[in-house]
Amino acid sequence: MELMRHLALNIPDTSKPRVVIIGAGFGGLNTAMGLSDEKFQVVLFDKHNYHTFQPLLYQVASAGLQADSIAGPLRNLFHKRKDVHFRMLKVQAIDPAANTINTSAGDLKYDYLIISGGAKTNYFGNENVQRFTSALKTIPDALNLRSQLMQLFEWASLNADPNIADHLLNFVLIGAGPTGVEMAGALSELKRHILHKDYPRLDFTKMRIYLLDGLDRVLPPMSAKASARAQRDLEKMGVIIRLNTMVQDYDGETVRIKDGESIKSFCVIWSAGVTGETMPGLPKEWAERGRLLTDSNCRIIGSSNVFAIGDIALMKQEKYPKGHPGMAQPAIQMGKYLAKNLWALHQQQPIKPFNYFDKGSLATIGRGKAVADLPGNIFFGGRIAWYIWLFVHISFLVTFRNKLLVLTNWIWNLFTYDKGNRLIIRPYIRKGDERAKEVFNNNESGS
Amino acid sequence: MELMRHLALNIPDTSKPRVVIIGAGFGGLNTAMGLSDEKFQVVLFDKHNYHTFQPLLYQVASAGLQADSIAGPLRNLFHKRKDVHFRMLKVQAIDPAANTINTSAGDLKYDYLIISGGAKTNYFGNENVQRFTSALKTIPDALNLRSQLMQLFEWASLNADPNIADHLLNFVLIGAGPTGVEMAGALSELKRHILHKDYPRLDFTKMRIYLLDGLDRVLPPMSAKASARAQRDLEKMGVIIRLNTMVQDYDGETVRIKDGESIKSFCVIWSAGVTGETMPGLPKEWAERGRLLTDSNCRIIGSSNVFAIGDIALMKQEKYPKGHPGMAQPAIQMGKYLAKNLWALHQQQPIKPFNYFDKGSLATIGRGKAVADLPGNIFFGGRIAWYIWLFVHISFLVTFRNKLLVLTNWIWNLFTYDKGNRLIIRPYIRKGDERAKEVFNNNESGS
Repeated sequence: MELMRHLALNIPDTSKPRVVIIGAGFGGLNTAMGLSDEKFQVVLFDKHNYHTFQPLLYQVASAGLQADSIAGPLRNLFHKRKDVHFRMLKVQAIDPAANTINTSAGDLKYDYLIISGGAKTNYFGNENVQRFTSALKTIPDALNLRSQLMQLFEWASLNADPNIADHLLNFVLIGAGPTGVEMAGALSELKRHILHKDYPRLDFTKMRIYLLDGLDRVLPPMSAKASARAQRDLEKMGVIIRLNTMVQDYDGETVRIKDGESIKSFCVIWSAGVTGETMPGLPKEWAERGRLLTDSNCRIIGSSNVFAIGDIALMKQEKYPKGHPGMAQPAIQMGKYLAKNLWALHQQQPIKPFNYFDKGSLATIGRGKAVADLPGNIFFGGRIAWYIWLFVHISFLVTFRNKLLVLTNWIWNLFTYDKGNRLIIRPYIRKGDERAKEVFNNNESGS
Repeated sequence: MELMRHLALNIPDTSKPRVVIIGAGFGGLNTAMGLSDEKFQVVLFDKHNYHTFQPLLYQVASAGLQADSIAGPLRNLFHKRKDVHFRMLKVQAIDPAANTINTSAGDLKYDYLIISGGAKTNYFGNENVQRFTSALKTIPDALNLRSQLMQLFEWASLNADPNIADHLLNFVLIGAGPTGVEMAGALSELKRHILHKDYPRLDFTKMRIYLLDGLDRVLPPMSAKASARAQRDLEKMGVIIRLNTMVQDYDGETVRIKDGESIKSFCVIWSAGVTGETMPGLPKEWAERGRLLTDSNCRIIGSSNVFAIGDIALMKQEKYPKGHPGMAQPAIQMGKYLAKNLWALHQQQPIKPFNYFDKGSLATIGRGKAVADLPGNIFFGGRIAWYIWLFVHISFLVTFRNKLLVLTNWIWNLFTYDKGNRLIIRPYIRKGDERAKEVFNNNESGS
């Protein structure tokens, strides 16, 4: 019997306007949480059954946190809501003319549609890069990367090939935005505090962490001061930073750089760019480079009842002619703005335009090392910035349970210098290197 | 380039006797931890890089705990040891005549070999059962089962097939030992405290949890009092218990029972038996039904320097003519015994035979409900047994970090009735039901 033969969305009909939200990231989740059950029916779609706190994914990848501590089941958040309906399903297409979305479990009419599908990794069309590099956008990405990292060290301890030995401990991070910078710092701390104890017979002076970017500074969205400080701190920690460096290709063992140089590595992490993920069925004129053009009410230009928020939205405002930065804050604020104003829009009342309040940006580099750009051009580096970073990240975790777990882990890590989640649960089999499966014979774990 | 082309075990030669340990479960780990670096070189093999606290796997599967909180990286445990060498590798064969083990990274001579590979699930030769049921012996098993459970509820919320609806919430546990009993209790608590809040539109009066066993009572290794109390408590919690019930087959949707009855279910958990996993190369006369026959010094009968401990060992003693129970305690005690006595054996001094101290056995049924058989035929049920169970399990977790994490989770679960780890990270694709992949389109998560 085919278990998924007859599917239905099973959404009850009500007299209230129905708001369909695609994506339960920071934007969509805040809209769903902020809308009133008295006024709207909310239908929320996501292909995962949990919300991911993306800013801490690199700590899951680097074994500092458990996946479960930065992700929470979505249904938990709506236990007290009477008319929010979550469906774990990928929306396949949208038909704006018919006010309908299409899913594999049937079609659904909407009164309002909020697209908050987020951004996906941009490989700029390079299939090799897409195939062989690791991304860090989702929980499975982070868990795969963690297993890959830990497995490479296990392999290094078993290696007998001098041609490989020199490259096995090379790690290359492409893209020096927050993900690249924070992951480079985390790898450096793993090396400094843990790996030499785990593998006393490996020579970790050979472990090299490269951080590459096509632009002329790290953390390009942050202030020049923050960039300079982050670069200085990372270099002190042994990270090799190559700026103005365009990567051309990666074939699974060699990163080729445009000027002809190359770096051998079996672990390349790609965070060099994101792109919007528009939906089939949307008019072409709604999008610009994969992002959906909206007015200052988050409403897609050309539509009366379809909205876009978060990374996928391109709201050109005077201070943000290229749209808002692709970070949690704009998505959260747009989500809350829409939740607050949708009823007024529904009643065709005038509402104030969205006004992004830039709370600043933060990036952590390591223990006691971070950079913080705060409102009013205030910059902090080092320990103060790190405390701010810790406080802000704990505050923004969605549930109290997540806060408690992250805090427990951090206090533990702080006092012990340990990162205890170094389990290889999702064994990494390098494409084209099937022998690893046979050697470890733990393919049951990958199922 | 093939990354795994030239492998070597890279174990240094010393003048000390070399002890090779296969398997880092309770037995092998305790031997490795107890041996002295001054006297022996220790080489420890496991196919995972972590030790698993198996008694709490069912809590990982039922979303009460994170995987990382009951498993710890093995290398962490040996940071202060100078001559313990862990290798994440499957040992392929043993050549006792040559005192050598064979691995894919080369051969290794041993002076003493300790086989502590544990037990594997026994399907009694039924390939269908092996293919379609879920096991609960490893961390990946537990995470797969958790995703499978949570996904079935998501599917139920999307189901439109009346033929399926009646069976979608049927769960069948085959084998009423501790795993079956504890998992049945955990499922019942999920139903009672969480699922109706997660899925307010599903009718959970239709959710049925079956616990089947071929014997005439649950928890057959425990006292009659414990069996009776566990059965009573489970039945009060709504678990349907079928004793003297032999399962004949399961084809992925129907469990066929010997008397002709059948139960439809899309989630069947098999814990009806274990069997030893002997290694290729061992003389046939060393084994009896997959377990290795040892004398009272844990030494394999017929060998002078090969030992077996834990589930794989069959040490027939007066009080235990069929060997010791397949639980953590005998393995731990044998591991410690061997660590303590190996030097004396090496010096051919007489040692005392192994004497198993039965500390009793425990099983938890639910919040405030457990059964405890303590030494001296003392039985506790209910809340006192539950407190004993909590205390014992926290005490036996290997690292302080694991204790801290489990305790944090339990305190959280206790006060909130929440089980917050309900993430579907390893999507379950039922064999032969590939459409699910397309519907959810989250196959990236399974990589």
